[in-house]
Amino acid sequence: MSILVVGSVAIDSVKTPFGERKEALGGSATFFSIAASFFNKVDIVATVGEDFPKKYMTLFKNRGIGTAGLHTAKGKTFRWKGWYDYDLNTAHTVYTHLNVFKYFKPEVPLKLRRSKNVFLANIDPELQYNVLKQVVGARLVACDSMNYWLEHKRKAFERLLDKVDILLLNDAEARQFSGESNLVSAARFIVSIGPKAVIIKKGEHGVIYFSKNSHFIAPAYLLESIYDPTGAGDTFAGGLMGYLSKASRIDENNIRKGIIYGSILASFAVEDFSVNRLLNLSMGEIRARYDHFRSITKF
Amino acid sequence: MSILVVGSVAIDSVKTPFGERKEALGGSATFFSIAASFFNKVDIVATVGEDFPKKYMTLFKNRGIGTAGLHTAKGKTFRWKGWYDYDLNTAHTVYTHLNVFKYFKPEVPLKLRRSKNVFLANIDPELQYNVLKQVVGARLVACDSMNYWLEHKRKAFERLLDKVDILLLNDAEARQFSGESNLVSAARFIVSIGPKAVIIKKGEHGVIYFSKNSHFIAPAYLLESIYDPTGAGDTFAGGLMGYLSKASRIDENNIRKGIIYGSILASFAVEDFSVNRLLNLSMGEIRARYDHFRSITKF
Repeated sequence: MSILVVGSVAIDSVKTPFGERKEALGGSATFFSIAASFFNKVDIVATVGEDFPKKYMTLFKNRGIGTAGLHTAKGKTFRWKGWYDYDLNTAHTVYTHLNVFKYFKPEVPLKLRRSKNVFLANIDPELQYNVLKQVVGARLVACDSMNYWLEHKRKAFERLLDKVDILLLNDAEARQFSGESNLVSAARFIVSIGPKAVIIKKGEHGVIYFSKNSHFIAPAYLLESIYDPTGAGDTFAGGLMGYLSKASRIDENNIRKGIIYGSILASFAVEDFSVNRLLNLSMGEIRARYDHFRSITKF
Repeated sequence: MSILVVGSVAIDSVKTPFGERKEALGGSATFFSIAASFFNKVDIVATVGEDFPKKYMTLFKNRGIGTAGLHTAKGKTFRWKGWYDYDLNTAHTVYTHLNVFKYFKPEVPLKLRRSKNVFLANIDPELQYNVLKQVVGARLVACDSMNYWLEHKRKAFERLLDKVDILLLNDAEARQFSGESNLVSAARFIVSIGPKAVIIKKGEHGVIYFSKNSHFIAPAYLLESIYDPTGAGDTFAGGLMGYLSKASRIDENNIRKGIIYGSILASFAVEDFSVNRLLNLSMGEIRARYDHFRSITKF
């Protein structure tokens, strides 16, 4: 049961206290699909411009990532430039050039409309809703968002939530959307208005999973060197959805394991710029870190 | 094997967004000893003034907390007044009146000098060192401190560390003392210069335990209502030391369990002002929350 992701494919320029990369591969659908590709076939629905480097297309194909839904439009690829200081939790944007992304109307190729696992990465909630209308019989729908949409498209976002199994937000977004400073209260509010469950991402402080009847808390894997946190959230989602797409059942037991795989994938992603670490990663390393994580958290 | 704690017994006035308490029982040795008393006999070495309410002395005695080392000196009891806003991680001090605590020279009663488990709560590291010189044959020595001593008495603090098994610091203190922003680097530095292990307390984000050869990470128990975080760190230490004082061996397996008991005790403490919740707490509730913690963290 393969995975469909709708989101952005972008060219990022990023500076952190540990270095700088210009015009590197980025975007939510990129990080997600490369992370998920360790587990399963992934198909991207996104748009790029005519300037999108061919080598990146090849990169996707070489990893078995489907690009039938990756539309090349007239114009330039979405570009983001930003920097982080030592507080790596906060990205400072220098510019966001939407370029072809401005006119993005996601269209799911016919043969992908029966995808069983769907991830709606952070885009306009009206577009996310539109994608869901094109898809039939999904077993698992997960969704991300960001502060801008929560503020400016709240109605559209709420309409979407009814159709979402797992909503992913970071802690600031969960507080903003719920109006609750306490994360338990925030999570309780969120699951009361739509999604079956919410995952609140706290960056280096780990993750809270909250459904109507239960919850799960996990610390983040401890890292001594974090080079670039860009894409960590989408990488997390890719690991989670990748693992779950192979699971026989979507139950809490498997969701918990998926969350840990997501954390592990994200912990690798931030060890280098762009998707570089993910490209040099093996399933053996992922499994070893998963086992190590278990050993350093058990009591 | 009973427990000896050296620290403060104080009268606190605290205001939080959820209420206010004036002239309530506080102090590091108080929170520590009440938490540890769920597991074992505890003896306090501290000083109070002539105004220290008799009812609090009775409270200690009723919980089997030894007060032979709790000296009543001429003058007034140590008083602290502070407040918290919604960021409950940061205490804002209105005043600290040391009063009799200014002249505190901890003297361990003769019959307590063979205590096997010693906790040096946050006081001047020269006094902490002096206490250790009075104690013979301790099996476990744990130690807390604060930013003031780390800055102004660094030499004395470092001399002490050689004799400490477990050092407890919060994340800001660990960063300050090590000069490292990354907590793994901070912990690595700390265990390289003395203590067998360090526990870095991250408040609502949990705990990192770090020894020369291994580490352990745990999230904090999720709470929907936090009324007053005062004393959470000392309560944590009390739960940890209480559990370990009963353990057959001080090995990492038991330290991990002790850390969880410490977190659980702290999670109760912050549910009410002063030591109120701890006084209305049963061992059954502690065990139930420990089991619940295990169930919401396992994967």
